Amino acid sequence: MLSKSQIRFITSLHHKKYRQEHQCFIVEGIKSVMEFIHSDYVVNAVYSTSGLAPKLGKIPQKIKFSDVSDADMQRISTLKTPQGVLAVVSMPTLLPLEAEKLAGHFTLMLDDVQDPGTLGTIIRTAEWFGFERIVCSLHTAEAYNPKVVQASMGSLARMKVHYADIESLITDAIVPVYGAVLDGRPIYDIPWGEEGVILLGNEGNGIRQSLLGHIQHPVTIPRVGRAESLNVAVSAALFCSEIVRSKTMWR
Amino acid sequence: MLSKSQIRFITSLHHKKYRQEHQCFIVEGIKSVMEFIHSDYVVNAVYSTSGLAPKLGKIPQKIKFSDVSDADMQRISTLKTPQGVLAVVSMPTLLPLEAEKLAGHFTLMLDDVQDPGTLGTIIRTAEWFGFERIVCSLHTAEAYNPKVVQASMGSLARMKVHYADIESLITDAIVPVYGAVLDGRPIYDIPWGEEGVILLGNEGNGIRQSLLGHIQHPVTIPRVGRAESLNVAVSAALFCSEIVRSKTMWR
Repeated sequence: MLSKSQIRFITSLHHKKYRQEHQCFIVEGIKSVMEFIHSDYVVNAVYSTSGLAPKLGKIPQKIKFSDVSDADMQRISTLKTPQGVLAVVSMPTLLPLEAEKLAGHFTLMLDDVQDPGTLGTIIRTAEWFGFERIVCSLHTAEAYNPKVVQASMGSLARMKVHYADIESLITDAIVPVYGAVLDGRPIYDIPWGEEGVILLGNEGNGIRQSLLGHIQHPVTIPRVGRAESLNVAVSAALFCSEIVRSKTMWR
Repeated sequence: MLSKSQIRFITSLHHKKYRQEHQCFIVEGIKSVMEFIHSDYVVNAVYSTSGLAPKLGKIPQKIKFSDVSDADMQRISTLKTPQGVLAVVSMPTLLPLEAEKLAGHFTLMLDDVQDPGTLGTIIRTAEWFGFERIVCSLHTAEAYNPKVVQASMGSLARMKVHYADIESLITDAIVPVYGAVLDGRPIYDIPWGEEGVILLGNEGNGIRQSLLGHIQHPVTIPRVGRAESLNVAVSAALFCSEIVRSKTMWR
């Protein structure tokens, strides 16, 4: 059984303020929890309802493991229908990102993407396509929001998500800057090189005015129908896919 | 001011049962409401809080228009933060889809996609790429669920969404059947023709066993990283994009 103070601590992590204060966040679901256990993250504690403990396999000794009642799981979970396994994980300490670090590969850079589900899907998709790092503007959704963690389906465990003043980063960038805009060159016609920044804008407003001037390669996903825009996660996926596509000789 | 029975009627449409009974659904937000007004759908009534009425422009006379208070809007809205404009729209009567109708173009076919946000994003994306029709299995999320309508960002107004026994449709199909699976031919290497069905599976289980045998072209989105799967809306987008890409000569 969990003590009142344990429950209070874990439920405090439902809120950004306390996640920042304690530098911890919540991961739920067997699959995701296992991915964090087998990652570079520090998992502090795992809570599981009795039926599910065996499915977790061997948990490293340094991780505190507790069996909890269904009622307690309901209390600590961020989900309407808890998945029976919940972990408290420490936020990683990422060194401040310097512009030189952008060399040699492609990096997604998000300008104030607001929706947590969208950010989680971007992390999941970018990881599928082998991207190792995402850079978020300071007003982008928080990567440790439970909805982001959920939508990333465990991929957050392997993705470096940096928060930075992207305007100064982009000003200093020595790699080509591509931007997703409505009046650029068709994405199918871009001679992708070996490195670059892919700048993707906010859901409603696109890329902020002051960043547009830093885009050397405005890129557009050609529209056939009449929809006004694409979901940012969909745009991100199409950029990732085109870059991967360009690295191999396909038909 | 709205009468109690009006409020009762509109809020009943928050639930699938009553949407089915009344064959009506709710659309919210100026942009989406305008797209439905200018579509083939029959819009029965538009409700708007006073500040927003002028932004709606000229509403055709046959549509009942009412100014409502913020409090009433809060009551009838499906959103935590109502957008000030709400319409009640009639469901269209689509003729049952026959297999011959699949000829001459590409059609997305969804096998039990559960998440309303995902379905809405698929509708929005497919419309961007010029697809005119989506076919959903009978257990796919309902297209008139407010979350689907919201995520489709108005694209539902221009997309035919059929619900059908997809197993019998696919058995009768005379066009090539492509399926999104994990061990198929790379999507970048597919000689897309002029027509076909793109079969996409459920979030957790993929394409059901009994449909797999009908897939003539198993297709895979090549994975570089370690994510276990992609979001269905992301997969759908990549299929749509590759098909559009194949129709023009790009680099």
